[in-house]
Amino acid sequence: MVNNMKVLASGVFDLLHYGHIRFLEEAKKLGGPDAKLIVIVASDETVTRSKGRPPVIPEDQRRAVVESLKVVDEAILGYRDMNLDKVIKTIKPEIVAVGHDQHDIEEEVKRLIAEKGYRTCVERIGRFGPDDLNSSSKIKRRIAEGSRRRP
Amino acid sequence: MVNNMKVLASGVFDLLHYGHIRFLEEAKKLGGPDAKLIVIVASDETVTRSKGRPPVIPEDQRRAVVESLKVVDEAILGYRDMNLDKVIKTIKPEIVAVGHDQHDIEEEVKRLIAEKGYRTCVERIGRFGPDDLNSSSKIKRRIAEGSRRRP
Repeated sequence: MVNNMKVLASGVFDLLHYGHIRFLEEAKKLGGPDAKLIVIVASDETVTRSKGRPPVIPEDQRRAVVESLKVVDEAILGYRDMNLDKVIKTIKPEIVAVGHDQHDIEEEVKRLIAEKGYRTCVERIGRFGPDDLNSSSKIKRRIAEGSRRRP
Repeated sequence: MVNNMKVLASGVFDLLHYGHIRFLEEAKKLGGPDAKLIVIVASDETVTRSKGRPPVIPEDQRRAVVESLKVVDEAILGYRDMNLDKVIKTIKPEIVAVGHDQHDIEEEVKRLIAEKGYRTCVERIGRFGPDDLNSSSKIKRRIAEGSRRRP
């Protein structure tokens, strides 16, 4: 096994919740006991382009919150266009961990490996606690519903 | 200076944001370089009683998220009635750090020190970034407003 394997994970982390932390913990485990977990936090521009609206929390604060987690060794703000090719070329991770709903990223990394021969592998992390509030969208929905009941 | 000073901080931490982390970092600094930061996370029952409604995120998840922060040594779920007397008697902190809006806790701890002679001192932490989204209430308001614009 390679020493100090670098695991790369990514996400928006708009409202940090327990599901994010479990995802990052499982991602880091993939790299063994001395793994280094590097997290790419999607820029406001990337989020706005893919979701049609900006995140609630600005990118610099989302990055700082992610880097304040014990499990995270380094949190880096993503390129404005989330250029995965450039990210992998720069960071050279042994493993790219993707969440259960990050199909686009999984496909893109697989395409890059096939085309460019990067020495990295993609690993999918399961979903945690489907009944819990383990999704920023679910949390936002619950807040919005609560506010409509109290106009 | 006492070695390994224990600093106690508390809060609801419903939607964890950068202001919480800055507050906890400043709280820990009060105890010097080897300080241990212990955080009491308010129980769902305490929050419901004081705010009239339960938090969005359940207590066990709020506690786990706070404990996953680098700056936090231990996060403990508060007693159902947030019994500060029992908390101070059990943890024996040298310093109790309170946020700029935690006047009730500040007064209660001061009263306990005067009445019971606890060897602890209360220190107020300033507010961070008044223009930023450094308040769970502000974040919830922004989410609710966004949802009303997209019915």
